[in-house]
Amino acid sequence: MVIVIQCKDSVGLVAAISGVLAKAGYNIISMREHVDVEENKFFARIVVDSISNQQDIERALEQVLPPLSIVKVNPLPEKKIVVLVTKEYHCLSDILTRNHFKTLGANIECVIGNHIDLQNITDRFNVPFHLVEHENKSRVDFEAELIQVIRPYNPDYLILAKFMRILSPEFISAFMLKIINIHHSFLPAFVGANPYRQAFKRGVKIIGATAHFVTNDLDEGPIITQKIIPVNHSFTLTDLVRAGRENETAALAKAMQLVFEDRVFVYNNKTVVFE
Amino acid sequence: MVIVIQCKDSVGLVAAISGVLAKAGYNIISMREHVDVEENKFFARIVVDSISNQQDIERALEQVLPPLSIVKVNPLPEKKIVVLVTKEYHCLSDILTRNHFKTLGANIECVIGNHIDLQNITDRFNVPFHLVEHENKSRVDFEAELIQVIRPYNPDYLILAKFMRILSPEFISAFMLKIINIHHSFLPAFVGANPYRQAFKRGVKIIGATAHFVTNDLDEGPIITQKIIPVNHSFTLTDLVRAGRENETAALAKAMQLVFEDRVFVYNNKTVVFE
Amino acid sequence: MVIVIQCKDSVGLVAAISGVLAKAGYNIISMREHVDVEENKFFARIVVDSISNQQDIERALEQVLPPLSIVKVNPLPEKKIVVLVTKEYHCLSDILTRNHFKTLGANIECVIGNHIDLQNITDRFNVPFHLVEHENKSRVDFEAELIQVIRPYNPDYLILAKFMRILSPEFISAFMLKIINIHHSFLPAFVGANPYRQAFKRGVKIIGATAHFVTNDLDEGPIITQKIIPVNHSFTLTDLVRAGRENETAALAKAMQLVFEDRVFVYNNKTVVFE
Amino acid sequence: MVIVIQCKDSVGLVAAISGVLAKAGYNIISMREHVDVEENKFFARIVVDSISNQQDIERALEQVLPPLSIVKVNPLPEKKIVVLVTKEYHCLSDILTRNHFKTLGANIECVIGNHIDLQNITDRFNVPFHLVEHENKSRVDFEAELIQVIRPYNPDYLILAKFMRILSPEFISAFMLKIINIHHSFLPAFVGANPYRQAFKRGVKIIGATAHFVTNDLDEGPIITQKIIPVNHSFTLTDLVRAGRENETAALAKAMQLVFEDRVFVYNNKTVVFE
Repeated sequence: MVIVIQCKDSVGLVAAISGVLAKAGYNIISMREHVDVEENKFFARIVVDSISNQQDIERALEQVLPPLSIVKVNPLPEKKIVVLVTKEYHCLSDILTRNHFKTLGANIECVIGNHIDLQNITDRFNVPFHLVEHENKSRVDFEAELIQVIRPYNPDYLILAKFMRILSPEFISAFMLKIINIHHSFLPAFVGANPYRQAFKRGVKIIGATAHFVTNDLDEGPIITQKIIPVNHSFTLTDLVRAGRENETAALAKAMQLVFEDRVFVYNNKTVVFE
Repeated sequence: MVIVIQCKDSVGLVAAISGVLAKAGYNIISMREHVDVEENKFFARIVVDSISNQQDIERALEQVLPPLSIVKVNPLPEKKIVVLVTKEYHCLSDILTRNHFKTLGANIECVIGNHIDLQNITDRFNVPFHLVEHENKSRVDFEAELIQVIRPYNPDYLILAKFMRILSPEFISAFMLKIINIHHSFLPAFVGANPYRQAFKRGVKIIGATAHFVTNDLDEGPIITQKIIPVNHSFTLTDLVRAGRENETAALAKAMQLVFEDRVFVYNNKTVVFE
Repeated sequence: MVIVIQCKDSVGLVAAISGVLAKAGYNIISMREHVDVEENKFFARIVVDSISNQQDIERALEQVLPPLSIVKVNPLPEKKIVVLVTKEYHCLSDILTRNHFKTLGANIECVIGNHIDLQNITDRFNVPFHLVEHENKSRVDFEAELIQVIRPYNPDYLILAKFMRILSPEFISAFMLKIINIHHSFLPAFVGANPYRQAFKRGVKIIGATAHFVTNDLDEGPIITQKIIPVNHSFTLTDLVRAGRENETAALAKAMQLVFEDRVFVYNNKTVVFE
Repeated sequence: MVIVIQCKDSVGLVAAISGVLAKAGYNIISMREHVDVEENKFFARIVVDSISNQQDIERALEQVLPPLSIVKVNPLPEKKIVVLVTKEYHCLSDILTRNHFKTLGANIECVIGNHIDLQNITDRFNVPFHLVEHENKSRVDFEAELIQVIRPYNPDYLILAKFMRILSPEFISAFMLKIINIHHSFLPAFVGANPYRQAFKRGVKIIGATAHFVTNDLDEGPIITQKIIPVNHSFTLTDLVRAGRENETAALAKAMQLVFEDRVFVYNNKTVVFE
């Protein structure tokens, strides 16, 4: 069972926390702790052997922690996700496969596409697919429709698996720190559109992919994980895109695993990740 | 200031340890903890803001820990090392350079060579060089001579920086878990002599290097770190060796940093490394 | 269009080959060439802009090359494969997905399982699945049955996508250099069964996967590609296996791409790979 | 012996080139060739067994190549370099060591520092050190002085080994495509000053280093090689800088090897690198 804590730092915090757990008879299997000394912030992820009285422990921990602390005991044991896609299949089919074999660490509630292209693969795994087209609609209307589809599922996370629409600050605010995006570049290099074309033109020797939470600034949210692959002059633009897809799939899969296992904490537009 | 603890696991251990530190008014900057559940072993590396009364804390910690625990407060703040070499310069010159610029995290007491080849580079950095030839000597005599040179320096670690002699179990016992070796392969592949020739013949696509503690079994001691580089069919044996050298230098440097910063714990012929 | 050549080396070979192509008016887009000087062997992969008279060029090339040369113009433009599996899904579902979206570079003729477990996922992609159980059968009978299923498809390659049965030299001979296996270790480390358990026990810091052609010696065939991922003490055996799966999937996918694009040449139990 | 060719592409180019070599009785050991189809440019690096009549071959090749071709037979067999530094030692000491052991592939003619800090390490290797201070000087004067020191050595390449002054377009033009710089970031991310601080603030999970030719646009010249290392939230800014140094040293060393072995071709602000 996992306990995550994020709060102001102070002397004796670990003692207080572990004291509560020891008193309740729990054995700490693994404990990861980080203090941002400059920012005076404390982060911990604790794995204990098992917890029967979840709410009691949560209350007991809150009593020894500073005000405004975030404490979660066994947070979201069964994450629910909604996946948003456009036309590219590589991330979605990887997610569907993992979901199918119960190795995703979350449950796909539905897939939403702004194009019909990926309905077929989604159907094959008996996952609901919703077509929400953006054409001939204002962004306000498009996003209102998205939200209408999403809300009943009450997802813990939205996964943008190559969803090629820019979301408004209003939409993002409605799901703050719940939207995970895969960006097809080694952020902050090649921000914006056509990063592979930019990379090709620049003659880079490594290309990257960045999985990050989406916040109001496009491509500027907290980075969860990054992956790279070496490339060279013999790569055409098509080759770069193809190689990049492998990288994007792997980076998004890794980011989801980290988030779904409650290993990721966010503050100041950065992350603490207990890998 | 660093505190390292290695002991039997039990409920309340983290609470007890952090209680001692909190009571003494220390703030935990970073805490890495690992429990081997199967083996019932506990490992921790704690960084606190500063410690004035080092011995008091050590004693206070011992009182709350199980018998036979290993506790070190501010362990070996100034490591002393002796470097053993043969003819290959790449690891030695890297170590000498870091030592010279005070970024090694340890102090080279002396270099011992069984050949004269590396005296010149050692002299350039004003580090004592001792020639201990192995030719026309029994291994017993050779090692006795080595020990005679080493002992007065009382080193914390012996670094085998491409030292091409096999050491006897007796010698190794005299410096148990104090000898760090760089092995020119991705152990356990290509154990023994001529790993690059073996790798060349086998047509591998990646070559590795392994830094490990030396124990009685040749090439079988606890692994500290491993590094790899991709290779291909165009590499001649000479190219493989050349590429391997970069890798060996980097792996040994990394291993020394980890050990000198007290991030490495050994048990059951394995390591816990808090990177 | 691709031309591959493998033959004895001799002076003027490149001139002769490119002379034939120039005379026929073809432009060389890319040419990779390798000579094993010790073995006196020549390998080339040439991409030309297009070829109309395929057989003429093949014959013209044969006339300027030494006897016993292998020349293939536009070799196997549409590779056909049969995939053999047992119970683990990760490699198969990756292959099925790529096949479905026409990015595999080959066509899956059918999947053969010695267990029924992976029929469901195969069915979802409308690919034929054949169950060939090995239980209560001699190896001879089991393999005879396999061959009976395979033969009508006349596949260019057999892909062992976590097929957990050892194949006889007779079976392997029947498909010499046509069987690609994914081995769950960094060969030649951890040959044989349970490599992750061995790796766990040994406390390695990197695990690998090796895609190779299968020849008579188990785990000893020519290596096509290898991939690694870093691991550490916090990985349980289960974590190692899980991490290893990502690696296996990626290594097998890469190996298939290289082979299907005719970038891999085999000789002396090694490969030349023009990546 | 190496032959490098860079020219306009045309049908029959490889045939013409290899015909010249075959006629002269040379055996091609290895041939790397690349065509940029869009730009209609041809690049080749050919290794032949040996060449006695270097100038004859060069002239014979020029006769079969398009006008304005670049042909070099055995280009610069003994490269001469001048190394420019400021205060950071890591790249310089690596270069000095390789130079000392004759594994650099070039000869250091001298080291120029705009600070005195690295004179000591340079002296230890008996390499001339020139102090050219920039303080209280206009850039024009500073660079005139640099050129006065550099010119008599007539170097093939200038290596900016953490040289922290921005060079004028005039200076750069005087050594066009002869200046190699190591940039402490994964270009084009974090262009400009303080990339580690930027990376720290942005919370990246990977940091990079880029070795490139210097052209008029700061940090925008053709990329030769890039290297990365994974980092995480536990890295302080100091840790990032320290990790970055290992990366910078390795990337610059690799770039020098590639350039000194005539494996790098430049066009359109990109490189072709035959690794």
